[in-house]
Amino acid sequence: MLRLLRQGLRWRRPYSSVAASDIEHFKTILPPHAILSTVSPSSLPSSELDQYNNDWMGKYRGRATTVLKPKTAQQVSDIVRWCAGHDIPIVPQGGNTGLVGGSIPLQDELVVSLANMNSVRSFDPVSGILVADAGCILQSLTDYVAPHNHIMPIDLGAKGSCHIGGNVATNAGGLRLLRYGSLHGSVLGLEVVLPDGTILDQLTSLRKDNTGYDLKQLFIGAEGTLGIITAVSILTPPSPQASNNVILALPHFDNVQPLYRAVKRQLSEILSAFEFIDRTAYNLAVKHGQGRALSDEDVEGAECFVLVETSGGRREHDEEKLEDLLSSLMDSDEPLINTGVLSQNPAQFSSLWALREGITEAVSKEGKAYKYDISIPLASFKTVVDATREHLRSKGLLGEHAVTHVLGYGHVGDGNLHLNIVAAAYTQEIQDALEPFVYEVVASYRGSISAEHGIGAMKTHALHYSKNDASIEWMKKIKTLFDPKGIMNPGKVLE
Amino acid sequence: MLRLLRQGLRWRRPYSSVAASDIEHFKTILPPHAILSTVSPSSLPSSELDQYNNDWMGKYRGRATTVLKPKTAQQVSDIVRWCAGHDIPIVPQGGNTGLVGGSIPLQDELVVSLANMNSVRSFDPVSGILVADAGCILQSLTDYVAPHNHIMPIDLGAKGSCHIGGNVATNAGGLRLLRYGSLHGSVLGLEVVLPDGTILDQLTSLRKDNTGYDLKQLFIGAEGTLGIITAVSILTPPSPQASNNVILALPHFDNVQPLYRAVKRQLSEILSAFEFIDRTAYNLAVKHGQGRALSDEDVEGAECFVLVETSGGRREHDEEKLEDLLSSLMDSDEPLINTGVLSQNPAQFSSLWALREGITEAVSKEGKAYKYDISIPLASFKTVVDATREHLRSKGLLGEHAVTHVLGYGHVGDGNLHLNIVAAAYTQEIQDALEPFVYEVVASYRGSISAEHGIGAMKTHALHYSKNDASIEWMKKIKTLFDPKGIMNPGKVLE
Repeated sequence: MLRLLRQGLRWRRPYSSVAASDIEHFKTILPPHAILSTVSPSSLPSSELDQYNNDWMGKYRGRATTVLKPKTAQQVSDIVRWCAGHDIPIVPQGGNTGLVGGSIPLQDELVVSLANMNSVRSFDPVSGILVADAGCILQSLTDYVAPHNHIMPIDLGAKGSCHIGGNVATNAGGLRLLRYGSLHGSVLGLEVVLPDGTILDQLTSLRKDNTGYDLKQLFIGAEGTLGIITAVSILTPPSPQASNNVILALPHFDNVQPLYRAVKRQLSEILSAFEFIDRTAYNLAVKHGQGRALSDEDVEGAECFVLVETSGGRREHDEEKLEDLLSSLMDSDEPLINTGVLSQNPAQFSSLWALREGITEAVSKEGKAYKYDISIPLASFKTVVDATREHLRSKGLLGEHAVTHVLGYGHVGDGNLHLNIVAAAYTQEIQDALEPFVYEVVASYRGSISAEHGIGAMKTHALHYSKNDASIEWMKKIKTLFDPKGIMNPGKVLE
Repeated sequence: MLRLLRQGLRWRRPYSSVAASDIEHFKTILPPHAILSTVSPSSLPSSELDQYNNDWMGKYRGRATTVLKPKTAQQVSDIVRWCAGHDIPIVPQGGNTGLVGGSIPLQDELVVSLANMNSVRSFDPVSGILVADAGCILQSLTDYVAPHNHIMPIDLGAKGSCHIGGNVATNAGGLRLLRYGSLHGSVLGLEVVLPDGTILDQLTSLRKDNTGYDLKQLFIGAEGTLGIITAVSILTPPSPQASNNVILALPHFDNVQPLYRAVKRQLSEILSAFEFIDRTAYNLAVKHGQGRALSDEDVEGAECFVLVETSGGRREHDEEKLEDLLSSLMDSDEPLINTGVLSQNPAQFSSLWALREGITEAVSKEGKAYKYDISIPLASFKTVVDATREHLRSKGLLGEHAVTHVLGYGHVGDGNLHLNIVAAAYTQEIQDALEPFVYEVVASYRGSISAEHGIGAMKTHALHYSKNDASIEWMKKIKTLFDPKGIMNPGKVLE
């Protein structure tokens, strides 16, 4: 059997490429339609694999020759066991909506797509516990539990295509974290195929289970480097009976922090989102027709915006709390806000959210984006955006020829800023100006270089800005324990 | 240097006892008052170590000769490094309030008490993030954050003496889990001394940080077998502005499940506890003067009781929701409840809680208790209590001579039942009648043999009732990776 040995740039050990003989074996595991390959004799045109080899931003590009689409955990196990025995590296792939290249092959790894594992296994309407295959799309699960008056504990812009398995593998944060907490709390169990092919069944649907080490936690946020998540047991909260939102225009960034304290105090348990949008992000969203804009008059002199959402059990109580909040904000001697617009119906509610959620799309329409997803103290959100802009200006990189916009938005309640640098094209010069500059700024605040997007392929070299030596050493020990051959998503998370 | 080699019942490898030469070395690390030892020349009477060698239930008894009380993580590290080099097994000890013998030596291990590490390191009132030494008492931390209008995300009966480090090491659940989720979600960072003496600093105070494997999760619930937690970073929620509670008497156990659904729907986000108390548990609590009892007339014909707590941001809204709930329950054609008593002031509020929280104390006043802390489906709570009672009756063990009461209470929202068997004395006969009987019943429901108490020394042999072979095998691999010499809390969690 002919095998090519590769010594990849990011790979320390030789791996095998997928050969015709491997395809023959995969045919004993999967039906023909679940095997996509450019390897002879299948010989699909490589364009058929484009959607698996490229990310949606057009930033990462793999050269996988073969994509497998198993339907059961046993099939995943059989595939992995073969790969382990034949040194074939694997990239597990969900909805491929990540932002750090975690689900794209670096070279010609085998792609195992979970897209065909898309069934709900069980749902208990009393406890709200949902057990679903990893390839279920987040929006489908939201729709599935809705008639039972439950919601998913996470929500994010990519909900129409991201998979629950990918959400868990990347420990996705998103828009509901402020209210429902992280996946480390709401994921109750996992089924995982380990790098040797073992199916680790920890798919408990118990809210509480203190019987030894909580191994499943290791796979939450490991980005597929320790195994392939094939099913998820997750606690879904009861649906709120009423949701409201309001967009507030603030004259100064410095008002955000006192506003957050006032809002937390007055809205208390019904506060479900507190999102920050700086003026540049707002302008771009409006320019590209994302959501409902305030009037020109209303936004005059506004330095930034805040979107507040409430979710509660009784509409009249929630509205009363929200109206009292707005009155107290407007009637104050030194108002923290210029103006606020309260949504009056479901269409307006969606439209206000579209303004916030549409920033990502507006940014991609405007140009190529360098995206940094960082945790820093709230008080420094503006300082960091401004410092980045000035740094680029000092390098002569600000303007139509290079970087056109530097903007920030994000989740205030989580201390999570999305710093976006929009440019005409991805260039090495801009890249070099941004890194390690941004990471050093984050490290100076003892922040995180990846609040929610993960490390993927993008930030492996920068891990040390957020993790100390002992932590990285222990991560490597864990990786070696689970994946001694290093076949599982190589070059991701750890270099 | 003379060392005794021991081949303990539960220990697979030879360990050393603490010798005079070890004490000499510890004196270079700690001041004299932080070393308690019966070893010559210190030669304290062994009664001085009673509180460290015995648990509060009088069920577990160790023979430690030496207790060390370090004040810094560096001192803990120095102690552990010495022990690792000299094969001295260690039992980390917090408030010693556990129920499964996890913090008591099995033989003469060295006890490292965290009681002197009791300082708050930092608190940020905007984010609510608290960083505290592991030895801080839970109630002290509650008192510390109260003036800032925050509360601790956990609350349990032992709050006056349990340590936050012990809470995290045992993944304590308690009374607020329904509302604030598990410690896997609310613990943001840990400082841990590993079994080789390394200080693993993952004491981040970021709400979100997706930079690689979340190693700290492994120590949450590992009961001190993978390292010694020396500090905790934890998210504290804002204090509710108003809390109310009500006790409801139910004619039939079958009403609990529909009642739970009705209460969840009507109280929604302000529901903070839904506690179940069976008639036997209620009667014992009343007999021993725990909390506020209902009138004899009110409880006539009641098969069980439910305590409902609300916590919200505006008193009048919360009261309106609670009163509407009670009206709808009482006005129904087939009422789910016989009666309900709403607390009218803080004293009554505390007194209703005392009835629930006082069951533990009532049980210890009544006799010796076999305590099982299990996760099973809510619908089977009564079946399991009844089946246990009948099983003991069939063995001739029910009556004044042996088991006097079999009772159940617990956290309905978490599917967590506390099954207590009260006897005149601990006997092998009762023990043999209860185990594996109880574990087999739990396994038949695919439940957990330890919902929140942990495995400790009590349930290592029963782990397989809740964990499959692959899971136990991987737990052992993790244990070996972190603690190859097996010196850290040997014989706990894993046999």
